[in-house]
Amino acid sequence: MSQLLRVQCFNVSQDGVGAGEGQSLEQPFGHIDPGDLVAWLGDTASFVYRTEPGGTRGLDDHFSRDFDRNIGAEIMGRNKFGPQRGPWEDHEWQGWWGDTPPFHTPVFVLTHHERPSFTLADTTFHFLDATPAEALGRAKQAADGKDVRLGGGVATIREFIEADLIDAMHVAVVPVIVGRGERLWESPVDITDQFESEVVTSASGVTHHMFWRR
Amino acid sequence: MSQLLRVQCFNVSQDGVGAGEGQSLEQPFGHIDPGDLVAWLGDTASFVYRTEPGGTRGLDDHFSRDFDRNIGAEIMGRNKFGPQRGPWEDHEWQGWWGDTPPFHTPVFVLTHHERPSFTLADTTFHFLDATPAEALGRAKQAADGKDVRLGGGVATIREFIEADLIDAMHVAVVPVIVGRGERLWESPVDITDQFESEVVTSASGVTHHMFWRR
Repeated sequence: MSQLLRVQCFNVSQDGVGAGEGQSLEQPFGHIDPGDLVAWLGDTASFVYRTEPGGTRGLDDHFSRDFDRNIGAEIMGRNKFGPQRGPWEDHEWQGWWGDTPPFHTPVFVLTHHERPSFTLADTTFHFLDATPAEALGRAKQAADGKDVRLGGGVATIREFIEADLIDAMHVAVVPVIVGRGERLWESPVDITDQFESEVVTSASGVTHHMFWRR
Repeated sequence: MSQLLRVQCFNVSQDGVGAGEGQSLEQPFGHIDPGDLVAWLGDTASFVYRTEPGGTRGLDDHFSRDFDRNIGAEIMGRNKFGPQRGPWEDHEWQGWWGDTPPFHTPVFVLTHHERPSFTLADTTFHFLDATPAEALGRAKQAADGKDVRLGGGVATIREFIEADLIDAMHVAVVPVIVGRGERLWESPVDITDQFESEVVTSASGVTHHMFWRR
């Protein structure tokens, strides 16, 4: 099977917002409470941060467990990696995720500003000034035959949609209204030329949108 | 994580029938056309028999791909293995699946009639005269830390439900009426004491029932 580029568990509000306004060190998602966006994942048996047994094994868990199934690398935008803008003032910032990031693969961070690679536990972060297609080529090489996950944020996913590089995409619409911020789309109908799609709502009230290349 | 016993992609008709009447060499599912029961799987990108690219990546595919995710062994009843009844007349019969069975793990066939183990490609079939709990113990040992799939048929799943050994179960209800045969249940409500559950219908018209231990 060929390697796919997949978006997994990308969460947006009912009004389509994936990142709030005013990202900072204290507020990775800006004015949005990240707890609102990811609560459904935290309840699932397969949640990537779960260390204890238990959790639900219903529909939400099917999406939760897909997060790392057959993933060999991740690509993310710089704003997912951190709140800094412009040239790196130093290299102290190593992401939001502490000493054991939940990726466990090479991660390629898209940025116009060079920075040396570094490793935390079993995740190595590389920094690339590259087009989406170039970044995907690098990530596929690193993924050792497995798929590549596109981690976001909003602007990065939109760039990859525009470059027609995404093979499969899962967007979870959570039942909160946030009013302002970066919108993934005005309407998912905007991308039906590129993708087949299916929509299903789980018992938690989350609506799961699945897209795959026509 | 502990090892789970999971039922995956067990298909029943709208009226709850998992196996028709009159199983024979020519009719593995008796009077039911197996094509009716498994059509939804054949359309998915992750179908275990798919050799070409393509296929859907919607909700049905989430269930299709779970069939072998983290599975290290299967337990099945004798009637899933073959149409023979009583003592083995010979050992020529090696299952319905040809030279490369879709299991790729040890398979434990429950039967009161002894028979030596044999291997086809990367699947080894063992024959056990054992209680459900004993069989599960053997399968977990063989599964190398992974989960065990309970493959059916109907009578076998019912035995394991009664012995309270199943941790998670996915039953696909396909939109056909067959009228007679072995019923998995009169109603899924019969097992809500044991399991939490969630039900969702996919675009193909298949209704997916998910159960997990309370």
